[in-house]
Amino acid sequence: MEIEKNYRINSLFEFYRPLLTKKQRNYMQLYYADDYSLGEISEDFDVSRQAVYDNIRRTEVILENYEKELHLYSNFVIRNKKTDAIRDYVNAKYSNDDKLLELVDSLENIEEI
Amino acid sequence: MEIEKNYRINSLFEFYRPLLTKKQRNYMQLYYADDYSLGEISEDFDVSRQAVYDNIRRTEVILENYEKELHLYSNFVIRNKKTDAIRDYVNAKYSNDDKLLELVDSLENIEEI
Repeated sequence: MEIEKNYRINSLFEFYRPLLTKKQRNYMQLYYADDYSLGEISEDFDVSRQAVYDNIRRTEVILENYEKELHLYSNFVIRNKKTDAIRDYVNAKYSNDDKLLELVDSLENIEEI
Repeated sequence: MEIEKNYRINSLFEFYRPLLTKKQRNYMQLYYADDYSLGEISEDFDVSRQAVYDNIRRTEVILENYEKELHLYSNFVIRNKKTDAIRDYVNAKYSNDDKLLELVDSLENIEEI
């Protein structure tokens, strides 16, 4: 459960990171992506542990609200499933068609651009 | 040129509409999607033509800034091109494989969900 939640928040953070403030980004990066403790972050930024905790909890709500509006993460999951379904089908039926496999593979990682 | 710009702003508006304020959404909807004139909008909302104009110009900048950060529209364009390339290839080479065509078609319109 905790791991699943962390994975979800990390994913939302990847998608909506540009919409956060610098402070929100810093805390989220350290806590969720780099696995720092609240205590370590509060020392680094010279603020109370409670202040860090509150900021992170608020940012989680902000991320979930962006997801509710824009659906970037859920659309990403759906698209990946559909791409996987095509790849499985093509691998099973046309595994010698390199051109087709290449076209299917090209569907991935567009988000990175 | 003007048509191209309108098309782009309309597309950005579709993607980032949830991130705008109610007033920004109203003006953009009427001006870009419903083709109202600035004069008509200013009468409807009982504000000056200049106020509507300024708000719309500012909103255009906001939309372009969101696009610079999140790339939703440019990613959408890239994905459509790649999907079209697969569909063209499948139509040319495997036009009797309905299952494959269905899988390719399922890649579209995910954004609508």
